[in-house]
Amino acid sequence: MKLGMARGEVCLRVSAILVLVLTACLVALDTQTKVVFISIEKKATYKDLNALKILVYVTCAAAGYNLLLLCKHSIWSRKNFKGSYLCMAWICFSLDQIAVYMTFAANTATMGAAVLAISGSEAFQWLKVCDKFTRFCVEIGGALLCGYAASMLMALISTISAYKVFRMYSPKWFLRLKSA
Amino acid sequence: MKLGMARGEVCLRVSAILVLVLTACLVALDTQTKVVFISIEKKATYKDLNALKILVYVTCAAAGYNLLLLCKHSIWSRKNFKGSYLCMAWICFSLDQIAVYMTFAANTATMGAAVLAISGSEAFQWLKVCDKFTRFCVEIGGALLCGYAASMLMALISTISAYKVFRMYSPKWFLRLKSA
Repeated sequence: MKLGMARGEVCLRVSAILVLVLTACLVALDTQTKVVFISIEKKATYKDLNALKILVYVTCAAAGYNLLLLCKHSIWSRKNFKGSYLCMAWICFSLDQIAVYMTFAANTATMGAAVLAISGSEAFQWLKVCDKFTRFCVEIGGALLCGYAASMLMALISTISAYKVFRMYSPKWFLRLKSA
Repeated sequence: MKLGMARGEVCLRVSAILVLVLTACLVALDTQTKVVFISIEKKATYKDLNALKILVYVTCAAAGYNLLLLCKHSIWSRKNFKGSYLCMAWICFSLDQIAVYMTFAANTATMGAAVLAISGSEAFQWLKVCDKFTRFCVEIGGALLCGYAASMLMALISTISAYKVFRMYSPKWFLRLKSA
C-alpha cells in the first residue's frame, strides 16, 4: 500500500510537469499579428504584458522543481535516511506549499489582467484589447485553464506531503512524535 | 498542551478576522475625488474596478467563515462528538483550504490589476491611473498588504487543520487509522 502512495505521488508529479510545460508553451508561443492602421502592423506576444512573462517563468520554475523532486524520489528513499525522514518530509511539505501558492498566484494575477483585457475599464478609459486580438486571447484563456489544472494537481501533491509529515505525530499529545 | 494548540488556533482565527475586516474596510472606504477637466470631477471608488469589488466580497466572506468556525469551536468539542471527530476535521481542513485559496486569489487578482494601474501598458495603450489618483492607490496598496497578511494567517490555520486530520493516521500503513 505504501508503494501505492509513492506511485500515486509520482503519477501526480509527472502529470503536473506535463500540464505546467503545456501552459508555458501555450503562453510563450502565442502570437497574433493584426493590421491596426492601413499599413501599420501590430504583433501581440506574451512580452506585451508583465503578468504573462511572470506566468511563463513561474510555470517553468514549478515544472523544474517537480522534476527535481521526482529525481530525489528515485535516489533517496525512506530506508536510506531513516533518521532525517521527518526533516526531509517537512522540507518537501514547505517547498510544495510555496510552489503551489506561486503557481496559483501567477495564474490568478494573469486572470486579473485578462479580465481587464476582455472587458476593458470605462472608469480608467482602458480599451478592450481582446476585441482586436481574439485568437490570442482565446489561447491565453486555454493556457489559464491548464494553469489552474496544474495548480490543483500541485495542491493535491502538497496535501500528500502534509499527510506524510503529520501522520508521524501522536494523535494524543501535541507535536509529540509517535513511539516507533 | 492540547489546550495550547486550541488556544493558538483561536488566536490565529481572531487575528485573521481582524485583518480581513481591516482589508475590506480599507478597500471599501477608499475614495478620492479629482478635477479631471476644468470643472468635471471624477471620483475613484472600489466600484470602478471589478477586482476590488470581488476583493471586498471575498474578504467579508472569509471573515464570516472564520467567525462561524470560532463559534463551532466553542460549542462543539472533541468529547461531544468522538465518533465524528475525523469527519469534522476533514470538513474543516477542506473548507480552510478553499477559504485560503479564495482569499489569496482575490488578493492576487487585485494585485495584477493594481500593477497595471501603476505602470500602465504601452502595448495596450492603457494609461497610468495611479498618476492621477495617488492617495487612492496607496491606500489600496496598504489593503493588499493586509490581505496578504490575512492569507498567511489562514495558510497557518489550514496547516493546523491538516495536522489535526493526518495525525490520526498510522505512520506505517497507508490511510489506516491508528488503533485507539
